[in-house]
Order: sequence, then C-alpha cells, then structure tokens
Amino acid sequence: MNATPLFPRVALIGFGLIGGSIARAARAQGLAGEIVITDHSAKTRARVAELGIVDRVAETNAEAVKGADLVILCIPVGACGPVAQEIAPHLKPGAIVSDVGSVKGAVVRDVAPHLPANVHFVPAHPVAGTEHSGPDSGFAELFIDRWCILTPPEGTDPTAVERLRAFWAAIGAKVEIMTPDHHDLVLAITSHLPHLIAYTIVGTADELGKVTSSEVMKFSAGGFRDFTRIAASDPTMWRDVFLANKDAVLEMLGTFNEDLSKLTRAIRRGDGEALFDHFTSTRAIRRGIVEIGQDSPAPDFGRPHANLAKKPD
Amino acid sequence: MNATPLFPRVALIGFGLIGGSIARAARAQGLAGEIVITDHSAKTRARVAELGIVDRVAETNAEAVKGADLVILCIPVGACGPVAQEIAPHLKPGAIVSDVGSVKGAVVRDVAPHLPANVHFVPAHPVAGTEHSGPDSGFAELFIDRWCILTPPEGTDPTAVERLRAFWAAIGAKVEIMTPDHHDLVLAITSHLPHLIAYTIVGTADELGKVTSSEVMKFSAGGFRDFTRIAASDPTMWRDVFLANKDAVLEMLGTFNEDLSKLTRAIRRGDGEALFDHFTSTRAIRRGIVEIGQDSPAPDFGRPHANLAKKPD
Repeated sequence: MNATPLFPRVALIGFGLIGGSIARAARAQGLAGEIVITDHSAKTRARVAELGIVDRVAETNAEAVKGADLVILCIPVGACGPVAQEIAPHLKPGAIVSDVGSVKGAVVRDVAPHLPANVHFVPAHPVAGTEHSGPDSGFAELFIDRWCILTPPEGTDPTAVERLRAFWAAIGAKVEIMTPDHHDLVLAITSHLPHLIAYTIVGTADELGKVTSSEVMKFSAGGFRDFTRIAASDPTMWRDVFLANKDAVLEMLGTFNEDLSKLTRAIRRGDGEALFDHFTSTRAIRRGIVEIGQDSPAPDFGRPHANLAKKPD
Repeated sequence: MNATPLFPRVALIGFGLIGGSIARAARAQGLAGEIVITDHSAKTRARVAELGIVDRVAETNAEAVKGADLVILCIPVGACGPVAQEIAPHLKPGAIVSDVGSVKGAVVRDVAPHLPANVHFVPAHPVAGTEHSGPDSGFAELFIDRWCILTPPEGTDPTAVERLRAFWAAIGAKVEIMTPDHHDLVLAITSHLPHLIAYTIVGTADELGKVTSSEVMKFSAGGFRDFTRIAASDPTMWRDVFLANKDAVLEMLGTFNEDLSKLTRAIRRGDGEALFDHFTSTRAIRRGIVEIGQDSPAPDFGRPHANLAKKPD
C-alpha cells in the first residue's frame, strides 16, 4: 500500500473485465487505502474472495459504497440507473461517483437524477478492453496508454474531476474531457459500429447454406477471424450499448451504408480505379494509429507463429 | 540444402509477402535444389539480391522459369493471365505451374488456355497473410497450421497434385482440395467480404465531419483499430480480388445486407432480446476457431501491453 493513497476507500460495483482490471491496477499502484468490491453474482463474489486481490468483498451494493470516497459502477450501461437509485441513500457526503460505460448521454440521464447533491458525479469511459469477460479476465495493464474519457456535467467541482483524472492517470491511462453527446458520436464510429458490423458478418457466415461452419472456421485466417474476436464480446454489455446509443449508431450506420453502396457499385461495374483509390486511402489511418501508439506495428497484431520444424534429411 | 530436395529448381514470379515467405520457408526446409525468383519491380529484384535469401534473381519472367520444375506465380490475380502467356513458351516439359491467388475461377479461366499441354497446372491458394507487403515482409513461418487450397482442373495428373501438396505440407500448411467455384464462394465470406467491410468502415470514419480523424485514431482501441489492419492490405491485390470474384462477393454482400437490416431494425425498435440473442450466438464460432487452432486464445490477439510503472512512494 502507498503511504498516501489517492482515496482512503474505493468501492467498485461489478467485477468483470473492467472492474477487475481497475481493482488489480489500483492495488498494484497503491491508489486506495482499502478496495471494496461487490457484484450481483454470488459466484463472482466468491471467486473474487478466493482470488484475494481486494481488501473486502461486500454482499450488497449498499454495503459496498458505505464510507467509500470513490465509487465506480463497472456494470452494463442499462444497469446504471437502478443501481444509482439503490446506492444513493448510502453514499458518503463528498464522495465521487463514476462509471465506465461505453455510452455517456444515457448514463448521465439515468444516474444524475438519483444522486444526492452532496456527492460529485463524474462519468468516465476507459476506451480499452478485450473480448474476455468475468472475474478472471481483468489485468492491471489493460489501461496503459489507452484513453479514458471523462464527461463531467456542467458545474461539476473541478477538484473532483482532477482527483478522478489523477486516478486514471496513475493506472496508465491518458485522460480527455468532452461532452456526453460528442463522446457518444465519437464512440459510435470507433467502437459501436465496428462491433455491430462484426456481430453481423459473423452471424451471416454462420447461417450460409452453401458454405459450412466448419469451412468458415478452417479458412478464417483470410480475414474473418479478426471479426470473430470482437463478436465474442459480452452480449449484455453490447445489447445495452446499442439500446442506449441508438441515435448516434443509426446515424453512423447511414453513412456506412452509403459508402458500402458506393463500393458495391464499383465492384458491379468493374471499376478497378475507384476500388484501387479507396483501398489506397485507407492505409493512411492505419499508419496514424500505429504512429500514435494505439496499435502494435507488428504484422497481424503480433499473433504468434510456431517454428518451422526442419525436415529430416 | 537437403540431400533430396522435392524439386531440383523452383521459380517464383513475384516477391511480395507470399512469394517472399514461400522462398524463405522452402529454403529453410531445403525443398529446392535451386530457388530462382524474379519480380516486375527492379527495386524489389535488387533488394532480394541484397537479402541473399535465394539462389538467383532473374531479370525477366522468361529467364526465371527456364528449366524450373515448379513455377509459382506470386502476383495479383489480374496479372496471372498475361504472365502465363509470357512464360508459356519457356516452360520446361513436365513442369508444374501453380499460383497463390485469392480467387481461383478467374485464374483457371485466364491461365489454363495459355499453358502448353506438356506442363501440369495446379492452382493453389494459401489462406494466410499479414497486412504488410513488399520484399522484406515475408517470413518462413507464415504458412504453419494455415490451410492451402488446391483446385486442380479435372484430369490433372495426380502425381503433380501430390508433389505440390507435399511442397505445401513441408512448409507447414494443411492442404485441402476443392473446385474453383466452391473455393471462390468460401473465400468470399471468410476473406473477401471481411476485407470489403473493413475497407468501407475505415473510409467512412475518415470522412466524417463531426468526428475528426485525430479522434478516430485516438479512440480506435474501442474496436475500430482491428479493421484498420485489414484495410491496410495491398490495394492492387485487393482490387483484382474484387474484380475477379464479383459474383460470389455480391452474393455474400446481399446476405450481409439483409442481416444488417435485421439488426438495424432491432436497434431502432429497442428490441433488446433480439440483440442479446444474436450477440450470444456469435460467440460459438469464435470458440470453434480458437479450438481448431486458427486463432490465438490470448485476449486481444495477444497484443502486447507495457508494464505498469509503480508510483513512487
């Protein structure tokens, strides 16, 4: 434990990939005098107690937040409103309440009305993750060099915002502040639409009559397998994202469909020049992403390869 | 060099990712008495000579294939017909001619008519790759545990097919035989459509007014960055794939569009149950792909993470 932790007590509600990674990272960095967690699943609570990586596992949300200086909801977006209502009477005056939801407008709308005036609400979204979920899936390094977006409502105490920023920075994240609406538009294109497309194409491949699922799996290294990773993400979380960010997702889908029609037309007409020009332009954004450290320069994401065993003479 | 190489002389026309990987793997395994390569780019030829990883760099296609027992065209699909015509008069009687194209119907149609009756034409497609291209991008392990599909025309000498199968097996690939038409349908869904979708969404993200390219890049770890890898693939190769496999791609696109409309409708109507059911069903195919060894079980493709530096006390 650190000599002067940022927060005497941190409570995490929900111990999946994100909650579990925050707990591990905060502990590794000594950011909390005490880390208390809870989860609606008794099995998950038992597993966390067994892992021994937090100070206390509470049985209920109310019990978890009592006396906590920072409370983070690490649960699907759709659960945030009801949980806020449940914990509101038990929050410590002056506490900071935050979340990790992939949609911010709906969370602000659902959570803020329930919270007492004497706590600070600072919504947050760490743009990081893997396709795994559950109490064992988290790891302390998940947020390193990833962005965490804060969307504090107007009039939020700047000190509270600064303390939350310091917390995320200490576990490796870069922090940016924007409005909930802009966040939801940005994430609709950088995260929600990619997931929707991936979920769609994996479903398409799975239901073809002319090509078997076995063939789809065997020959997936041609590109398809990349999509299956994203389409293996937590279904509850993603259901909630699409319900909560409907407008922005539909807007981005509209633009995507127009662009897909354009490329489809080029294919139908045999317009090689249009295809070549498009395929050339998309290389630049990949280069940019690698240059700013948001992806690995290693080919194929650095997927491992076995050694080529030498043929015996 | 191996005491009894499979082929006394192997000629590779084209030294990009695939040609360069075949050369490195064949050399590592001692599969050829002599490896001769050429490339239409003088710069590439010079670079290969500098790398010193093949026995000889020929200046022309005609010169490269002279006396070769196995000739593999490692060039974009659209270039195969003209090159076949060019090399035909120079082929050694009894030679095996193959390719590595991602489309097989068009290659059979464009190449076969040019070849003399005394050579064996065995089209092939190794389903493997990375987003990198050029003479330095290849590596000997690329084909390990990946599938290589052979589509020999009816009546092809079984011995020739068997020799090519042995070659691919020796550099680590598993070999499957199917008809060109079925190959083109399978690859339309496992490779061509995923690439088209990725090229589309990356283009969409790059041209939004409301979200800047800088924001798209910064917050790409939410899923988008996965698509940019595929959309960084070689533009010439992919232009040719879509021109050559138009019918199968348009057919798969039709099914994809129907499925996307279904999910879009579920979002618009707020039908959480339909979304949840769909997102649950797509997890199975990911598990299958990992189980049969076609992708890594490591989260996030095994992308590397930095260490979390301990905060000083």
